[in-house]
Amino acid sequence: MSGQPVLHEYAPSGNCYKIRLTAALLGIALERREYDIMKGETRTPAFLATVNANGRIPVLQIGDQFLPESNAACFWLGDGSRLVPGDRFARADMLRWMFWEQYNHEPNVATLRFWTGWIGEANLTDAQRALLPGKIEAGKAALALMDEHLAKNDWLAGGALSLADIALYAYTHVAEEGGFFALADYPAVQRWVARIEAEPGYVAMGA
Amino acid sequence: MSGQPVLHEYAPSGNCYKIRLTAALLGIALERREYDIMKGETRTPAFLATVNANGRIPVLQIGDQFLPESNAACFWLGDGSRLVPGDRFARADMLRWMFWEQYNHEPNVATLRFWTGWIGEANLTDAQRALLPGKIEAGKAALALMDEHLAKNDWLAGGALSLADIALYAYTHVAEEGGFFALADYPAVQRWVARIEAEPGYVAMGA
Repeated sequence: MSGQPVLHEYAPSGNCYKIRLTAALLGIALERREYDIMKGETRTPAFLATVNANGRIPVLQIGDQFLPESNAACFWLGDGSRLVPGDRFARADMLRWMFWEQYNHEPNVATLRFWTGWIGEANLTDAQRALLPGKIEAGKAALALMDEHLAKNDWLAGGALSLADIALYAYTHVAEEGGFFALADYPAVQRWVARIEAEPGYVAMGA
Repeated sequence: MSGQPVLHEYAPSGNCYKIRLTAALLGIALERREYDIMKGETRTPAFLATVNANGRIPVLQIGDQFLPESNAACFWLGDGSRLVPGDRFARADMLRWMFWEQYNHEPNVATLRFWTGWIGEANLTDAQRALLPGKIEAGKAALALMDEHLAKNDWLAGGALSLADIALYAYTHVAEEGGFFALADYPAVQRWVARIEAEPGYVAMGA
């Protein structure tokens, strides 16, 4: 078992699920170690010293090396596989959607899901509450941009399933859990969600 | 000249500078097209329809293909070069810092520079003003994390200059312009800044 990568994770996190889904589609076994972020288990001195000084999960451990950042972990798993395009432009275009996910999509779609589903709207700070309208607007703009692209393309980059689709599927398919978005407003996104879920090896978020 | 990539940019943007610096270090000539974001020139119907539906610069144009997202454009330029590590873990670790830059560094260090240097603190909305303390704290945490890593490593990933250093150098070396950060507080970062500026082919942000 020494060669098996270890996923340090909090299972309900979409960022952790991305890595599990990538591994499942590629038939790579992962050892899973669970941390409860609601109890601060990724902010302990031991976690900060050995797993990630940034205090965040997921982290993918390969031997004695630790790789934070969900999309970087997906890249390590997918590097050289069918999930990373062989064409130079398509490979960069895949990364383009993955960077966009971290900048334009995750801080809105994922954060709203976490705030309402985990923290609870009644427990938000005033500063968080002030951000709600902007995050709802930005989240809708992100989903609309995906819908516009997916109305003309089956996949986000390179004409085939890639890490870009996995990275964006993770929080998109549960976007409604935040209570602010309706996937029915984005029909091309809905069809793309169904395409991903029909892929051989697909695993659900709760699996 | 038909093979020369075209950079659609706003020159004072660190995200645009990353691409120019990557190209300069690799000896790749770029054609530059300037848009004034303060006048909304990246939100015109023509820009949205042809260059980037997301209304943002930089975008790297390669032939008739358009690549948004600064770090993806750097990856296209650097793919296969000495700026992208050949080792699988180091390559993913480089991307780890680049994703971290977009999530933890740019929204704080770059946004504060833009807000105070371009928009002006007196012109901020109430919502933006409410975000200032959190962004200052998160920006300091980001610079401290870099400093901790760079105290033990000359470069961010793979033991050599890579796209990760370029991506993080862009806004770090001008972090003081926002008025909230002092690079003297991060001595290992300062030494790393000097190492990058000594690289053959280096070009300054204003060049």
